[in-house]
Amino acid sequence: MKKLLRVLLYIYLPIAISCPAWAQSDPLPSWNDTAPKKAIIAFVDRVTKEGGPDFVPPADRVATFDNDGTLWVESPVYTQVAFAFDRVKQMAPQHPEWKTQQPFKGILEGDMKAVAATGEKGLFQIVVATSTGMTNEQFEQTVSDWIAQARDRKFNHPYTELIYQPMVELLAYLRSNGFKTFIVSGGEVGFMRPWTEKAYGIPPDQVVGTTMKTQLETQDGKPVIMRLPEISFVDDGPGKPVGIDTFIGERPIAAFGNSDGDQQMLEWTAAGPGPRFMLLVHHTDAEREYAYDRKSSVGKLDKALDEANAKGWTVVSMKDDWKQIFAFQP
Amino acid sequence: MKKLLRVLLYIYLPIAISCPAWAQSDPLPSWNDTAPKKAIIAFVDRVTKEGGPDFVPPADRVATFDNDGTLWVESPVYTQVAFAFDRVKQMAPQHPEWKTQQPFKGILEGDMKAVAATGEKGLFQIVVATSTGMTNEQFEQTVSDWIAQARDRKFNHPYTELIYQPMVELLAYLRSNGFKTFIVSGGEVGFMRPWTEKAYGIPPDQVVGTTMKTQLETQDGKPVIMRLPEISFVDDGPGKPVGIDTFIGERPIAAFGNSDGDQQMLEWTAAGPGPRFMLLVHHTDAEREYAYDRKSSVGKLDKALDEANAKGWTVVSMKDDWKQIFAFQP
Repeated sequence: MKKLLRVLLYIYLPIAISCPAWAQSDPLPSWNDTAPKKAIIAFVDRVTKEGGPDFVPPADRVATFDNDGTLWVESPVYTQVAFAFDRVKQMAPQHPEWKTQQPFKGILEGDMKAVAATGEKGLFQIVVATSTGMTNEQFEQTVSDWIAQARDRKFNHPYTELIYQPMVELLAYLRSNGFKTFIVSGGEVGFMRPWTEKAYGIPPDQVVGTTMKTQLETQDGKPVIMRLPEISFVDDGPGKPVGIDTFIGERPIAAFGNSDGDQQMLEWTAAGPGPRFMLLVHHTDAEREYAYDRKSSVGKLDKALDEANAKGWTVVSMKDDWKQIFAFQP
Repeated sequence: MKKLLRVLLYIYLPIAISCPAWAQSDPLPSWNDTAPKKAIIAFVDRVTKEGGPDFVPPADRVATFDNDGTLWVESPVYTQVAFAFDRVKQMAPQHPEWKTQQPFKGILEGDMKAVAATGEKGLFQIVVATSTGMTNEQFEQTVSDWIAQARDRKFNHPYTELIYQPMVELLAYLRSNGFKTFIVSGGEVGFMRPWTEKAYGIPPDQVVGTTMKTQLETQDGKPVIMRLPEISFVDDGPGKPVGIDTFIGERPIAAFGNSDGDQQMLEWTAAGPGPRFMLLVHHTDAEREYAYDRKSSVGKLDKALDEANAKGWTVVSMKDDWKQIFAFQP
């Protein structure tokens, strides 16, 4: 019996000791001890305190995150645009006509003004040419191959390393407190799902994004999902609450964004009853990352910043509130 | 120290004892010890055996379930149709014109032939009249109110008690083995999400279904999601693999259905690599539930039954393979 007791002690004592120790350790080590970190922890404490007035059952702890500029870098161009441009270059030998057709000509010649001049119609042509007319599995493989080798110019790192370490910690912290964490992004779901689980711990079914129309077809006697040249849903601006409602079916109690495209998602979150948490990441660190807001062509943060200031939403200054931005930085 | 040991014993010994006991207890007590139960347990053992040749990591353990006829009763009419008909009767005082307009006239007079004669167009009119032109929250409340008091005719029980006890056990068994369980149903998501968590333990974000178009609007200065009179996605037949791909983003390794509308979902599941499990519930018990298949107007099971037999998919005979069908039955 004594031996059994000793065995039990060895097995279970570390658990009994380690639990309180773990609870006391800093869940957000890359965050400075400034207001945003305090606000996050205070909110999580409020909604997880059993018997407290603001307790939220785990089933309702839904948190939504924009991706571009909130979880990873979006400057100088959205990563999905970099992907599409690389794909045009890669596919050009099979499309000799692109040498004379905009916006493809501009991409191949590095003439971004000419590309920009084609506007939304041009962008749509690029998307159709590079990411439809193939099965979802073929596209997933294409994205996985690209993201494994592509490097951004400023940092010379894979894009999956250009994820914000403080936000990765925040995702894990929320999940360890019973939250379900979702991406709700303007990016296309087919572009995000192949790598979000590894990068953020977010599985494919918790990724909401802009969606291409698809249909079931048969190839070589096997069913395949074919990507059609038609956008069925744009998950940006007013589309984000619609995307949340359609794909998640529950209003978040916490939402995280960085631009005017996230404004309606934060408003939708704020408009529910009970405790709410809204946060904007403000890109203020030209040295360690980028600094931009009201006049930026990517991730413009203007009206949403005014609203955040007026309503007391949490605004993170990357320069002041984050000790570290990327895991690879000192 | 001795006291501490005793305390630890009291606290931890029950855990040490109860775990093996739990593992040995029957996870599917309402299933007879026939082939389907054995096939389910063998499959779960295969994919969860770490180091085994067929091990599937928890992240990829996705299981999808049809709802009508697979998880709950669909006879003599789909529950959502019963809901819509009740709504027409309830709303009739505000719509005097319905007294002379089909299909509403038929519903109010109990003339189902006249309703049926209006076909799909009539059904769509009923859906539009009873479940759009309101916010998602208003609709959720309407569904919750209805399902709390509605009773079916044959059993005189709430519809949320007409769920199949063996399938509820199966859902829990899969989840306790690391599976994520999804509903993939022809029913409308807005009709299912208000009650699936309580009935099946399936949260709203894991419910995929036919979807109405919605948009963000402002009412009294607050954002609302308005349900528009347009179906944006039909989650039945070939729509099911598309729905799985769009909403879940991963191919299931196990799929459960009961009718020809589930055939493509099962084929899509079967067409993936590695271990796969496909199951059809066959309604064979006229006494305890209903008996129907090849010629039924609801839940027709004809081609999918032939395919199941040809390919060795598991077919559950409710009469022979289920000890109990509903929790309220002896």
